[in-house]
Amino acid sequence: MTTPTSNPQPQKAAFIVIGSELLSGRVHDVNIPVLATALGRHGIDLEEVRIIPDDRKRIVEAVQDARARYDQVFTGGGIGPTHDDITASSVAEAFGVPLVLDQESDRKLQALSKPGTYNAARRKMAMLPQGAKVIENSVSTAPGFSLGNVHVLAGVPSVFKAMVAWLVPRLPQGAPVRTVGWQANGIQEGDLAQALTEAQQRFPTVELGSYPLDRWGKGQANTDGAQQPTVALTAKGRDPKALEEASKALAIIIRNLAAEPLPL
Amino acid sequence: MTTPTSNPQPQKAAFIVIGSELLSGRVHDVNIPVLATALGRHGIDLEEVRIIPDDRKRIVEAVQDARARYDQVFTGGGIGPTHDDITASSVAEAFGVPLVLDQESDRKLQALSKPGTYNAARRKMAMLPQGAKVIENSVSTAPGFSLGNVHVLAGVPSVFKAMVAWLVPRLPQGAPVRTVGWQANGIQEGDLAQALTEAQQRFPTVELGSYPLDRWGKGQANTDGAQQPTVALTAKGRDPKALEEASKALAIIIRNLAAEPLPL
Repeated sequence: MTTPTSNPQPQKAAFIVIGSELLSGRVHDVNIPVLATALGRHGIDLEEVRIIPDDRKRIVEAVQDARARYDQVFTGGGIGPTHDDITASSVAEAFGVPLVLDQESDRKLQALSKPGTYNAARRKMAMLPQGAKVIENSVSTAPGFSLGNVHVLAGVPSVFKAMVAWLVPRLPQGAPVRTVGWQANGIQEGDLAQALTEAQQRFPTVELGSYPLDRWGKGQANTDGAQQPTVALTAKGRDPKALEEASKALAIIIRNLAAEPLPL
Repeated sequence: MTTPTSNPQPQKAAFIVIGSELLSGRVHDVNIPVLATALGRHGIDLEEVRIIPDDRKRIVEAVQDARARYDQVFTGGGIGPTHDDITASSVAEAFGVPLVLDQESDRKLQALSKPGTYNAARRKMAMLPQGAKVIENSVSTAPGFSLGNVHVLAGVPSVFKAMVAWLVPRLPQGAPVRTVGWQANGIQEGDLAQALTEAQQRFPTVELGSYPLDRWGKGQANTDGAQQPTVALTAKGRDPKALEEASKALAIIIRNLAAEPLPL
């Protein structure tokens, strides 16, 4: 891991979610928005998320592919003590390095275990790929780690969140990306599509987006379907001046449809 | 699309979520569990989810890669009328076919529009890749479609759900997969890891899993962190007899730790 620096180059990231329980539909992900938001604030673009099963071959392939293509790669899940927790050994395999006992993690795990319960399964959590640096977290015993540009985090949401909070501020910073926008009731995408296309041509450095409210929400999408059509218009970019102008243009598009732009 | 048949071969699927708004952390996905659950009931294994931006090149690559590797591929998002809705044209490009006006969709979209509002943007939604078959849905105007083994669905959750409900029962059925299991309070993964490894060796046709409660929940993961350690043990497989025996073995593992197995 390097010291944070201001970097004018966009930093691109991928997130590999390791979790058969998500692919069966039994568990809903809550970690993706946590990582995405933290990265966005730090100027790192999350460009891809992959959810794959707890399968060694799939993890090795996904890590090798992602670490070649992205500046930073995060994994979530599979670092506990049971037989299906194979992330650390799979990442070691992806890097072609052995697993070695991390003395400090071993000591901490032992200290946190009830007397007489520090068994082989718990010690397995202290086996990290050679060269890995531990990611601190105050919540849990299973240690996350960074190896090169790959950051291995817990899947348990409370622990994942703590690890993200510790790790992300320590990563090289990209030029910050901001998203601004408006929401408007009573209008449909089909009514503003043409004006939005024209606005996108006027602001090529800004990414304009349009989303019906049903897939939108502050923190949680509305799954019931809006009674009244509602659209959110967003502008995303790195140039504050272009962003401000694009935002004004979006508000005008909404007012031209006799609707009131509400801040997102 | 083929007529449903009973197929002893496992059917494997991938889901490509097209949504920059998910990668920015502004919107939480609610569609993955809907598709995963519907596929599981139909005997189709969801083996991968990818979330990618509203970017033509990325969509084309992801569709081409996934349709070669999986029996069924689903996409979600990007079929509306605005400039950032590029899924239909990207899928057409992935298949090397032109977009053509689907007369039936065009007629329906026009009938559902208020008089005088059926513009070029709305008509764009009726432009489907040549050879595509429309996916019915009662909720929305934007038509989803199937082309070969690729099924293009809306991103809006209420519409997505309606399209999944219509489409999945019409796909070839795999041997049904079931997941059974137990939850237990007051025990930790480290206490049962060894017994679970042994059970996995005894039941090679069943996939045993273990999840701390923090990442578990009926319909929604608990993000607050459990006060008391709680673990869910699951057995997933196609052989009903092996599944029943594995489930009994999991209950015994929990009882041996002086805890009560609670059905999931």
